[in-house]
Amino acid sequence: MTLNMLIFQFTGSAMPPPTPRILVPIDLRKKPWEQKLPLHNRWHPLIPAVADVRVGDIFRIETLDWTGGAITDNASAIDVKTIDLSTVHYLSGPIKVSDKDGIPAKPGDLLAVEICNLGPLTGDEWGYTATFDRENGGGFLTDHFPCATKAIWYFEGIYAYSPQIPGVRFPGLTHPGIIGTAPSMELLSIWNEREKQLEENGPQSLKLCEVLHSRPLANLPTSKGCLLGKIQEGTPEWEKIAREAARTIPGRENGGNCDIKNLSKGSKIYLPVFVDGANFSTGDMHFSQGDGEVSFCGAIEMSGFLELKCEIIRGGMKEYLTPMGPTPLHVNPIFEIGPVEPRFSEWLVFEGISVDESGRQHYLDASVAYKRAVLNAIDYLNKFGYSKEQVYLLLSCCPCEGRISGIVDSPNAVATLAIPTAIFDQDVRPKTNKVPVGPRLLRKPDVLKCTYDGNLPTTTNPAGKT
Amino acid sequence: MTLNMLIFQFTGSAMPPPTPRILVPIDLRKKPWEQKLPLHNRWHPLIPAVADVRVGDIFRIETLDWTGGAITDNASAIDVKTIDLSTVHYLSGPIKVSDKDGIPAKPGDLLAVEICNLGPLTGDEWGYTATFDRENGGGFLTDHFPCATKAIWYFEGIYAYSPQIPGVRFPGLTHPGIIGTAPSMELLSIWNEREKQLEENGPQSLKLCEVLHSRPLANLPTSKGCLLGKIQEGTPEWEKIAREAARTIPGRENGGNCDIKNLSKGSKIYLPVFVDGANFSTGDMHFSQGDGEVSFCGAIEMSGFLELKCEIIRGGMKEYLTPMGPTPLHVNPIFEIGPVEPRFSEWLVFEGISVDESGRQHYLDASVAYKRAVLNAIDYLNKFGYSKEQVYLLLSCCPCEGRISGIVDSPNAVATLAIPTAIFDQDVRPKTNKVPVGPRLLRKPDVLKCTYDGNLPTTTNPAGKT
Amino acid sequence: MTLNMLIFQFTGSAMPPPTPRILVPIDLRKKPWEQKLPLHNRWHPLIPAVADVRVGDIFRIETLDWTGGAITDNASAIDVKTIDLSTVHYLSGPIKVSDKDGIPAKPGDLLAVEICNLGPLTGDEWGYTATFDRENGGGFLTDHFPCATKAIWYFEGIYAYSPQIPGVRFPGLTHPGIIGTAPSMELLSIWNEREKQLEENGPQSLKLCEVLHSRPLANLPTSKGCLLGKIQEGTPEWEKIAREAARTIPGRENGGNCDIKNLSKGSKIYLPVFVDGANFSTGDMHFSQGDGEVSFCGAIEMSGFLELKCEIIRGGMKEYLTPMGPTPLHVNPIFEIGPVEPRFSEWLVFEGISVDESGRQHYLDASVAYKRAVLNAIDYLNKFGYSKEQVYLLLSCCPCEGRISGIVDSPNAVATLAIPTAIFDQDVRPKTNKVPVGPRLLRKPDVLKCTYDGNLPTTTNPAGKT
Amino acid sequence: MTLNMLIFQFTGSAMPPPTPRILVPIDLRKKPWEQKLPLHNRWHPLIPAVADVRVGDIFRIETLDWTGGAITDNASAIDVKTIDLSTVHYLSGPIKVSDKDGIPAKPGDLLAVEICNLGPLTGDEWGYTATFDRENGGGFLTDHFPCATKAIWYFEGIYAYSPQIPGVRFPGLTHPGIIGTAPSMELLSIWNEREKQLEENGPQSLKLCEVLHSRPLANLPTSKGCLLGKIQEGTPEWEKIAREAARTIPGRENGGNCDIKNLSKGSKIYLPVFVDGANFSTGDMHFSQGDGEVSFCGAIEMSGFLELKCEIIRGGMKEYLTPMGPTPLHVNPIFEIGPVEPRFSEWLVFEGISVDESGRQHYLDASVAYKRAVLNAIDYLNKFGYSKEQVYLLLSCCPCEGRISGIVDSPNAVATLAIPTAIFDQDVRPKTNKVPVGPRLLRKPDVLKCTYDGNLPTTTNPAGKT
Repeated sequence: MTLNMLIFQFTGSAMPPPTPRILVPIDLRKKPWEQKLPLHNRWHPLIPAVADVRVGDIFRIETLDWTGGAITDNASAIDVKTIDLSTVHYLSGPIKVSDKDGIPAKPGDLLAVEICNLGPLTGDEWGYTATFDRENGGGFLTDHFPCATKAIWYFEGIYAYSPQIPGVRFPGLTHPGIIGTAPSMELLSIWNEREKQLEENGPQSLKLCEVLHSRPLANLPTSKGCLLGKIQEGTPEWEKIAREAARTIPGRENGGNCDIKNLSKGSKIYLPVFVDGANFSTGDMHFSQGDGEVSFCGAIEMSGFLELKCEIIRGGMKEYLTPMGPTPLHVNPIFEIGPVEPRFSEWLVFEGISVDESGRQHYLDASVAYKRAVLNAIDYLNKFGYSKEQVYLLLSCCPCEGRISGIVDSPNAVATLAIPTAIFDQDVRPKTNKVPVGPRLLRKPDVLKCTYDGNLPTTTNPAGKT
Repeated sequence: MTLNMLIFQFTGSAMPPPTPRILVPIDLRKKPWEQKLPLHNRWHPLIPAVADVRVGDIFRIETLDWTGGAITDNASAIDVKTIDLSTVHYLSGPIKVSDKDGIPAKPGDLLAVEICNLGPLTGDEWGYTATFDRENGGGFLTDHFPCATKAIWYFEGIYAYSPQIPGVRFPGLTHPGIIGTAPSMELLSIWNEREKQLEENGPQSLKLCEVLHSRPLANLPTSKGCLLGKIQEGTPEWEKIAREAARTIPGRENGGNCDIKNLSKGSKIYLPVFVDGANFSTGDMHFSQGDGEVSFCGAIEMSGFLELKCEIIRGGMKEYLTPMGPTPLHVNPIFEIGPVEPRFSEWLVFEGISVDESGRQHYLDASVAYKRAVLNAIDYLNKFGYSKEQVYLLLSCCPCEGRISGIVDSPNAVATLAIPTAIFDQDVRPKTNKVPVGPRLLRKPDVLKCTYDGNLPTTTNPAGKT
Repeated sequence: MTLNMLIFQFTGSAMPPPTPRILVPIDLRKKPWEQKLPLHNRWHPLIPAVADVRVGDIFRIETLDWTGGAITDNASAIDVKTIDLSTVHYLSGPIKVSDKDGIPAKPGDLLAVEICNLGPLTGDEWGYTATFDRENGGGFLTDHFPCATKAIWYFEGIYAYSPQIPGVRFPGLTHPGIIGTAPSMELLSIWNEREKQLEENGPQSLKLCEVLHSRPLANLPTSKGCLLGKIQEGTPEWEKIAREAARTIPGRENGGNCDIKNLSKGSKIYLPVFVDGANFSTGDMHFSQGDGEVSFCGAIEMSGFLELKCEIIRGGMKEYLTPMGPTPLHVNPIFEIGPVEPRFSEWLVFEGISVDESGRQHYLDASVAYKRAVLNAIDYLNKFGYSKEQVYLLLSCCPCEGRISGIVDSPNAVATLAIPTAIFDQDVRPKTNKVPVGPRLLRKPDVLKCTYDGNLPTTTNPAGKT
Repeated sequence: MTLNMLIFQFTGSAMPPPTPRILVPIDLRKKPWEQKLPLHNRWHPLIPAVADVRVGDIFRIETLDWTGGAITDNASAIDVKTIDLSTVHYLSGPIKVSDKDGIPAKPGDLLAVEICNLGPLTGDEWGYTATFDRENGGGFLTDHFPCATKAIWYFEGIYAYSPQIPGVRFPGLTHPGIIGTAPSMELLSIWNEREKQLEENGPQSLKLCEVLHSRPLANLPTSKGCLLGKIQEGTPEWEKIAREAARTIPGRENGGNCDIKNLSKGSKIYLPVFVDGANFSTGDMHFSQGDGEVSFCGAIEMSGFLELKCEIIRGGMKEYLTPMGPTPLHVNPIFEIGPVEPRFSEWLVFEGISVDESGRQHYLDASVAYKRAVLNAIDYLNKFGYSKEQVYLLLSCCPCEGRISGIVDSPNAVATLAIPTAIFDQDVRPKTNKVPVGPRLLRKPDVLKCTYDGNLPTTTNPAGKT
């Protein structure tokens, strides 16, 4: 017996290394609908799975940025202003999950997805943060910042920096903005009904709406801009699904756009399963995000990859989740945050209370309080040489923490925004020694704005597929 | 020259050690109004300072618990049910602050207060967490938990444990719930006016009010239960101030009840100065608190001490703060969080979206979303053998983080509640292997409830001073 | 039945709060031998316990600083130069530990001591760091720093600062330098025998000795300066014990002077039990220490208190420890580090290899490598305006980490010293832009030195008890 | 003017994204000497640079594992036993560094290398930990573990697990074991001279040598196994350089094999420059390592990539480093540790003192103390079902911290080894409740050993190039 045979024997008994296979590849030169495994931008039970995995497999999913490449690394925010938002978010999937015996996840199970690794795509190490124009969706502070702006971020390994926001650099806490399972038809109907109600009847409160008056209350299904994976556009099947499929903008019972910024390496997401195979999708990768993602297009948006591993917890919905509403489907996912992340020692904290800018008192309203905390932070950092637009974008994407500090002390909710001081190249804390008089250092250049005002030719419109 | 003389000379040149002098002492056997330096439970510019300090001094302030001793270490929640809330919070101060030359802080300055150390009072190492009865103020989840409950916590150094919530132990992130400067008359008028408006006109939104229907919208000035420091009750001066002094319940422009749970050792608070000397007060010490302090009496409430050091930043309000409202007084304090705290590696995160328990959709409402996240966490932990009342109290006081994760994705706000898994003596994460069937381990005993239903004799009413 | 009776009943069922009783009090105005419960400065099985506790009790032990007050807050290092080191360390205890049934810990058990809390004594919030003179024991770098020096540290809550080392402030990671159980006679004999062998035969290596030539190789028993708790000096019993009792300088099998700087709040020490009742002692409190405690009197030495809680693990020595030598007594304690401490984000790391200052190669010698890392750090920080003496003291007491990075790559051991950059008020990292030429900022004043050279009068000699 | 022209203009003004170009590529199917840019395994000034970069560039360097592929993912440790150690470590480089004007780094400068990112090579996500046979170099504990063993680790994103060490999983703190600049001829002579002295005269101390008696004292230059980059084997130039080039085993003045386990993402290394262009090399990537790398082949050894960025600090050696020896070349690099890493809350700490296993006392010897701490940890974890061989390998590669706790308390040095408890799937802390009697859970399978004992055919010998 030769040694080679011996070694062969040995090797035979060793477990194969878990190199992740590329389950969903992305070709950055292609449009979302041209990808080998076509993407989708709606939630619907009938969007067919593009791949399937078994529990315990390590696999790799690649994603386009949420706009499918519509916003580019150029020197104008005009692409932000003119983007057709009916086309977002472009998601990779759905992925069907089965157990080791090949039996798919079933409604009522929990799907545990572990994020083993994730990051930008090689050769595409950049991202952007933007605010939408008032006419195109706006953001949290549209009444203060009505125009589209954009900042480009480049990555140096773990760090991001932006030519448009000089003097700031921070390590990314990279995560997927969206991860969710396919809804059942029943759950989809619940969504569509309740959001329609809101759209038709208006909100009970007008406070945020007054300031956000140009934003749609809900984003109801529309076949405009709709991309449904393998389902061919124009077929009757496509028409039906497109009319009823839910938009991906809000987070819902299936997870979806939860924007939990700490959902990084080593995290685990426990998603309820509503259809056979779970059919989960993911996308909207963020190199980094601040809690609240305040500018809407707020994180450092990028393309990227995820290395994932799944488990199925049979019957886990009943075992671990409790419906919080009229049906057993009114549940929410659970998340587990892992031990690896950039950590900071010192934080500067801005506070807001539920009194709005007009001086009016709101009743325990955490949204108003958080808005004020963010505005306070913007004005404060503006005093250190950053433009307000720069800070607004920065708070949207740097690893700042937005907390509900007090929610019971009538009539004021107290919300706080904590910013790690180490991301600045200057000491931004208040100081006893008066800051030198005279003009402050201006942080130039500034954020990108819209310098072109005409109609955007259709060729740069990623949704203009025809 | 003898050695003694030499040593004397040397000693003469050394700086004196900064042992903190006890500026505001507390005698735990005495009522708030019997203390050597009388406490106060209202905000008003005319409440006279009880002590004064210079910048750079290290000094010690002691405080009663927020109820001034009305809630005790006994085995019933009846004291919680019957407490007269017109008497809270009992604060130590006001403290007048001057610079090294004796010139007091002036309106327009910033007062920086560093928390050098803080903790429970020796011999009083215990605290309590409670929920109020629906008829007595309730809390964040009164519609789900209408009755008064209480848990007693004992401290083992840095750790707290409760006989009423077995199986849980955690290190405290101790902080003052309240720290604030005295308002000017102008600021006080603004407060009273806007809160009266709310009380009279009702909130713009009914959503939270529906579920919190028995809670007062605002807590307007009342002379009932009023304690004004050195000002003698019954005098005309007392009557005037008592009628217009602001309640201490909500956080406001002067700081006050901000309930920022990370405001622990090494933190620094930058408070706006509205009156000569700044006249800051503090109290409402929490051994630990969860973000949001959801049960209202929600932290581990205790008596305690603080070792503080002040700086004055001359003209700092203009330099560092930006009014967010119709007057230059519409500002908020800034906080700096220090490097010392218990840190956790792993967190279990619960999510809520702004759909309420009836299934109704709310528009980007972070308060509704946070409520749902808290309810999800309660139901989840209930499955591990804790009663829902135990978890509600626990989330109010353990070091959990309440985050605004998404505030722009119409129509759903996404809020999250992250709980460090290390505080439990069992693994509370979801698991693939089904949890053994049969009755779960019951965590007994349970929270304290009201077992006596008659009228409380006035002798145990701390506000019944007469 | 009246309410009062009801409440009484309730109270009766509640657990008593665990306020720590003061088991070993210290009167700072008294000498070690004058304390109510006399201290001891030797290890011997026959030193009688001064107090006893049961498992689960929370109790408080107070300690003098290790010199029993011989080094004072004055402006000279003369007390450091002239101290009689035969008198250290003054320890509080021994404490006898029994289980809930009153049965004492037995040889072969493990004693688990939890540090619930600890800190400086109220009214004595200061400490010192010092280097001994070459003639009086020296330290790690005596060949470079042969003279006695001293720095005084004052505490502002969690922070320490020194007038002698301006520009530095850091939070303390407070811990007891010494905690240990009483040895059995058999273990004591082993110690005395092996240390005598070293003293008589010299070390196998001369390398460190050459540079530390004036330091004693071991510190063998001596009745000079001996304090044995309740045992009366001059009695035959005292004479016998004093002759054979082990010095407290080195750490040994019973724990003792282990100087583990992270042994702070929430830590747990598992000590082997060698005598009935375990009879553990503690002392040598450090407000803060750097790994290695390089200047010998190296931490911020202070008086202090500890709040402790004990458990007995019956048979735990056999269960958990493995003898590493010829007898079952050749074991070492185990330690558990808790979750609460100051944490730092950025560290500057200095490296040393086992090549000494003469250029000579040593074989995998971690002591030589660490010495070089420390010298590198001293020279580096010297370039930022600190005197070398200041840095030597600083590295002895700031929270720096001394690591064995490589111990196998012949012939060089690699040791590293990591210093948290946040403790300095300047940026001490290397920079591309050349530091401005001209004289650097001198950090003045400097460390305290010996300005008096005569004989010290006996009255200030703490060991001169007669 | 059309929009396209406009956009072109905009794009033109934006900075190009810093996608790292692959400066040194690796083909895993090829031998070290077959790579496109040939590797080298010696330090010598005349090894020519294979690539050059400018300061500010982001570039990518790929590396083979330190053995150049000699140890494989098979089921035997025979490759470990028979490896020809004259061939290690295979390094990528040298890289020549110039400033923006093209002027190379000069002797006397400091080269700052920032690690922007690093990790395993795609498709090669595995590594190994091994101990060498006594006859082939051994390790720190060769007297206890004389035989070759091996464990294979597979990576699941940030996590590593080994089929040979079941029940353990941990996130990697990935770093290069080796990074260093080329020595000058003068520095090389110093190295060769002092190591020859050691080899010829023996160490001053025999203590470690007794237990490590089969290990070479130093690894002097040898042309056997020598690989010199672009220099053709067999040429006179090759012969000359091979005879005098320094081995890469020990860390030295140029950095080299420093094995600092925290040198991960965001770290910065300040290397002294000895030759024009600095000519730095790197390699020996570790997915994870314990302080000390105790088993010699001790980290999780792997191939990998680094994304780096360089700065030149002109004159930085004089500015920042201080020679610690007879020439200005006797310096050591400085390191800066970044903010991103897995962090742990709880640690179990094992202690060792400088008394060896025979009971003999050594004088302040940190190497002996650390050896004992490691042995204590091995024996302790052995009680939890792991074999001693498993623990020895584990301590070599898991993120444990090896500290010099006390180095001044004659005669005992105290060293500690802290292990994060979260890496185990069981609670490994001592417990009051006796661990169940009966046979402990055996962690099977065990480490790989040598099951084949014949002569290894030359074809698997990576150095057998002919």
